Amino acid sequence: MKFEKKDILDIESLSRDEIGLILDTADSLKEISSRAIKKVPTLRGKTIVHFFHESSTRTRTSFEIAAKRLSGDTVSISASTSSIVKGETLADTARNLEAMNPDAIILRHKAAGTPHMLARLVKSSVINAGDGMHAHPTQALLDMMTIRERKGRLDGLNIVIAGDIAHSRVARSNIVGFTKMGARVSLVGPPTMIPQGIETLGASASYDIKEAIGDADIIMMLRIQKERQESFLFPSDREYARYFGLTAETLATAKDDVLIMHPGPINRGVEIAPEVADGPYSVILEQVANGVAVRMAILYLLLGGPR
Amino acid sequence: MKFEKKDILDIESLSRDEIGLILDTADSLKEISSRAIKKVPTLRGKTIVHFFHESSTRTRTSFEIAAKRLSGDTVSISASTSSIVKGETLADTARNLEAMNPDAIILRHKAAGTPHMLARLVKSSVINAGDGMHAHPTQALLDMMTIRERKGRLDGLNIVIAGDIAHSRVARSNIVGFTKMGARVSLVGPPTMIPQGIETLGASASYDIKEAIGDADIIMMLRIQKERQESFLFPSDREYARYFGLTAETLATAKDDVLIMHPGPINRGVEIAPEVADGPYSVILEQVANGVAVRMAILYLLLGGPR
Amino acid sequence: MKFEKKDILDIESLSRDEIGLILDTADSLKEISSRAIKKVPTLRGKTIVHFFHESSTRTRTSFEIAAKRLSGDTVSISASTSSIVKGETLADTARNLEAMNPDAIILRHKAAGTPHMLARLVKSSVINAGDGMHAHPTQALLDMMTIRERKGRLDGLNIVIAGDIAHSRVARSNIVGFTKMGARVSLVGPPTMIPQGIETLGASASYDIKEAIGDADIIMMLRIQKERQESFLFPSDREYARYFGLTAETLATAKDDVLIMHPGPINRGVEIAPEVADGPYSVILEQVANGVAVRMAILYLLLGGPR
Repeated sequence: MKFEKKDILDIESLSRDEIGLILDTADSLKEISSRAIKKVPTLRGKTIVHFFHESSTRTRTSFEIAAKRLSGDTVSISASTSSIVKGETLADTARNLEAMNPDAIILRHKAAGTPHMLARLVKSSVINAGDGMHAHPTQALLDMMTIRERKGRLDGLNIVIAGDIAHSRVARSNIVGFTKMGARVSLVGPPTMIPQGIETLGASASYDIKEAIGDADIIMMLRIQKERQESFLFPSDREYARYFGLTAETLATAKDDVLIMHPGPINRGVEIAPEVADGPYSVILEQVANGVAVRMAILYLLLGGPR
Repeated sequence: MKFEKKDILDIESLSRDEIGLILDTADSLKEISSRAIKKVPTLRGKTIVHFFHESSTRTRTSFEIAAKRLSGDTVSISASTSSIVKGETLADTARNLEAMNPDAIILRHKAAGTPHMLARLVKSSVINAGDGMHAHPTQALLDMMTIRERKGRLDGLNIVIAGDIAHSRVARSNIVGFTKMGARVSLVGPPTMIPQGIETLGASASYDIKEAIGDADIIMMLRIQKERQESFLFPSDREYARYFGLTAETLATAKDDVLIMHPGPINRGVEIAPEVADGPYSVILEQVANGVAVRMAILYLLLGGPR
Repeated sequence: MKFEKKDILDIESLSRDEIGLILDTADSLKEISSRAIKKVPTLRGKTIVHFFHESSTRTRTSFEIAAKRLSGDTVSISASTSSIVKGETLADTARNLEAMNPDAIILRHKAAGTPHMLARLVKSSVINAGDGMHAHPTQALLDMMTIRERKGRLDGLNIVIAGDIAHSRVARSNIVGFTKMGARVSLVGPPTMIPQGIETLGASASYDIKEAIGDADIIMMLRIQKERQESFLFPSDREYARYFGLTAETLATAKDDVLIMHPGPINRGVEIAPEVADGPYSVILEQVANGVAVRMAILYLLLGGPR
């Protein structure tokens, strides 16, 4: 199968087969990162622009390492140093970047839909590294890779996503991806954090975490964002931890082979207890390792072939 | 012809032949950026320091991409992370950088003349990427390259530069370059923005844009800077657009083969109307593309030969 | 001799032989930086993360240049863009980085002991690029290299370190290193800047710089930090310069072959007079040049062999 997409913008626009190809490619590229010489010449002479309008350690670092292990040339632009501060429109910034012939632009932006707009404007491949509360497709892909690696499949699994669903691009991309690959997704969180109508994405919703995780193969905890507290979505960290945090005690009702996931960065003692984050069911750091592999796979599939 | 300069500090210090050699070299390096593998080994093992005391997306990105396409190693220093904040003098920072044996230092600085001082202090090549209101030689060179590419020559052309001439290092470098290469330069803008005595650089000045562009082969619009408004150089964006903005209507009196240029970032609807910026006469994005080629040429001529 | 350490955290944990091996390696790698092609393939395919929680031009630039001249891939993380701002613990940030399989993490941090904690958490090599007021081992190593290069040895030399000893990680690492290599260290400065009990590190202390430097082979001036003035450790720059600054006049009593050192950035006219900093005894810029060589040596010894 040949990968025909120009861009990776969201999970919706990828077929089951395309997702399968990305995950298979990531599986096979993963071992490069454990070699003594972690580098292959695949993307030599390709220019990859990292354009991050929101700060991010792990996603930017993961993409940069992925690009460099494939021998790509990287250039990094952050919001603070960009012409945006001089009042240029994003469309003009995009056209200007385009004129310098980059092969890929990796964009993180606080406004939903920005990568889609960029992709229409430029011939370069555009990879969405997170846009507002909309999508974070490489996170969903690395999550699928991690589950498939451990469980052998996604089809037929019960996956619980817990926390602030309403404001999470990670949740949104994962709900779409998991259901597309045949898993059942249950959402759980305080009513203020579960958006109305979320069932249209194919997921069910409930409000009691202990009940929700009873038959889960996977429990994915979402990061609680402090700024949400200020908007009264929950009364305090302590209250949140008590009702929706994942602790050893909560986990008592879970399956013996459950996997605990979290997109990071974690708030220890808020949405996840330290003993759970560091415990035997946790695959949180495998997610991070797979992030590099998935991003290598995407760069390889978008830029590696003859064009 | 061999290129003998150590530094590129301004257009004044380049001869017609040297400018011609830079432009010829840029013409021939340009196609590298449209190859599948955009990389040649010319500057392998050269250390190029990007030292930007003012933020800049396009110039820094353009230089970084140029260096990487020639296989140079780049290190980036910005004002905020530099020892300058610890009270070190620029001369000491320069000597320290020098001790690490960089091959080139690319400097942008808010104070005019800083690159010249740096060039006297260090053995490394120094490239001026914009110093205060003084000079921006690589911008002038990419502008000359763009015109030559489209018109076949600079000699004998009528070039109008419109806007805030007084505060523009782009204007200053271009006036010097264009006249050196045999073009006639006319300046137009509000009287508050045309410096007295500018004629000594070999350009004429006037105050009515419609009149000025009648026999122009090239119209270069300058960016209007909001901070100038606060100093009362013009009453409002709207007023400025009305009297000095380039619109389809203003253009009606221009030649059929006129070229519209702008150093960017553009203010749509202020100094240039969107339909003009995006229209058939505009070569604004070609300027950006040629920026990479000119910077590759300069790095190649300064560092590429045996030294 | 084989280098067996995983990390470079401080000078205390290095043996005389290990220090000797680092300095010998640095001596032999130094000439790479004066070649026309300043690059060897030793660290090709190694991922080196620069993680700087305090800003630093010279140390970060020196490490980046060192890594690139050995063909390593570098990724840079600064405090402002890191997840730390999202409340993640450093331990979690470390584990996340680790999951991306870097070969080395170079850490600067304002809190003493942070690199040691990081080193226990990750399999990657950790290099301390300065932690609080605790240690700066690569600075001490480049200082030792510079002295050895000029004097042929460290053993038996008289070394004066002058200034704010109490708050200087450079002083602390150097006292340990110099005495370990057989030199005698004398400290001099205002009583408020000499910590009680410093003699336990093997150095003597006094309060009159003219007296102290009489039989010194090396005088190392420390940077005076303005923020100390605010905490009343000294009354004013002028007072400090008068009593503890190194001037041509103070130097009159020094040996004919004395070497003047300073870790930079220097405050001209405060702790060191311009004519001394730029004078014939000064090796300040050699220190900077040797910084690149020492960091190349450390990266080579930690990552270059088979693991």
